[in-house]
Parts: sequence; structure tokens; C-alpha cells
Amino acid sequence: MEQATIKTPQPPYYTVVFSAQMSERTDGYEDMAMRMVELASGQPGFLGIETAQNPNGSSITVSYWVDEESIRNWKKNVEHQEAQRTGRAEFYQNYTVRVGRIDRDYGFDASA
Amino acid sequence: MEQATIKTPQPPYYTVVFSAQMSERTDGYEDMAMRMVELASGQPGFLGIETAQNPNGSSITVSYWVDEESIRNWKKNVEHQEAQRTGRAEFYQNYTVRVGRIDRDYGFDASA
Repeated sequence: MEQATIKTPQPPYYTVVFSAQMSERTDGYEDMAMRMVELASGQPGFLGIETAQNPNGSSITVSYWVDEESIRNWKKNVEHQEAQRTGRAEFYQNYTVRVGRIDRDYGFDASA
Repeated sequence: MEQATIKTPQPPYYTVVFSAQMSERTDGYEDMAMRMVELASGQPGFLGIETAQNPNGSSITVSYWVDEESIRNWKKNVEHQEAQRTGRAEFYQNYTVRVGRIDRDYGFDASA
């Protein structure tokens, strides 16, 4: 998953900014990350997800949601909770999750 | 700049999520990007910035600010405006800027 530019509907909508630093151990990480993107995409209220990862193992993943309830439900999803535990135990040195609301957006497209 | 995990104060605070796809041309981009991070860091109300770039040239940069006025002032900064023009003319195939407010955050640190 190397997609960092998606379309979203008119604001307002809600966002989760997940900023992380990987630990040394990365076996199985990519599979888990791809599965989480697939799982998130099927959740009620999901609008899209963007992710970028630096060569040094730091990464930013931003997901967009219709409302805060959708975000809370996603956090509580059983398979996602298992992945969160695995992430803390094996894959992440540290991370920060920031939840908020997008109020306005604008963009540029050279091909438009 | 490959820093994707910074410390921020207690929410609420404001954020700009800049998601971009580079064009083919990248000469001079890294210098400009580093200069913009340096310039942003000196602006009133700046709290921090995180960025990650994929090998395919898509990237996410998230900056954090005390209030919306700080974000508006940063957008209007003369040197930043020149960089925005250069970015559209030379470096970016497309981008989206999303502005919003972070209401809560939490994190994990294996070394804590």
C-alpha cells in the first residue's frame, strides 16, 4: 500500500492520523498492514486511507471517516484490536494516534 | 527530513494534512522541502511537522498548529507562496490540503 492521494467528499469529515516508528522486527508487518487497510475499508463510515513510509521505518497513515462513532467502532473491531496488540508487542517502537475533524480542503491536479 | 513521530501538546490543536504525488521532475525538490520545513518551524503558532514519502513519489506531510490563524498566516507567507507556485509548476502531479482540528490523541512507546 503506497497510496497517499485519495479523493474524499466535501468536509466536514473525521480523521485519524497514525504516526509510527517501526521497531527492528518487520516480518509479517506488511501482510498485517495490508489486511488492516482491507478491513478498515469495509467498516461503516469509512471514506478512505492514505499511507506513506520512509526508508528509516517511520510512517504516517491517515484515514478518513464519516463521523466519530465510525472511528470508535473501528478502534473496537475485534480483529483490529488483535492487530493493535501485535503492533505494540512486535512491530512498533512508538506511535501516536490523533483524532480530529477536517473542516476544509482544497487541492491541485496538473492533469485537470 | 524523514521524521514521522513528534511530540505535540495536549489537544485541541490544529492540523494541515498535505497529501501529494510527485511528478517526474525532482531536481531541487528536496532542498525546497527542507527549506519549507525550516521556514514553517519559525512561524508563530507552529507546533511540529511530520513527513513520510513512499518510493513511488507519493507523500504525506502533517503539520500541527496552535490555531487556525497560524495556519492562514503560514499559507500567506511570501516565501511559502513562491514555493507553492514552484510546487504546482514543477514538482507536484497533484496534491490535497486538508485543514482541521485534532481533538484527542494517545500513543504508545515501547521504551517508556
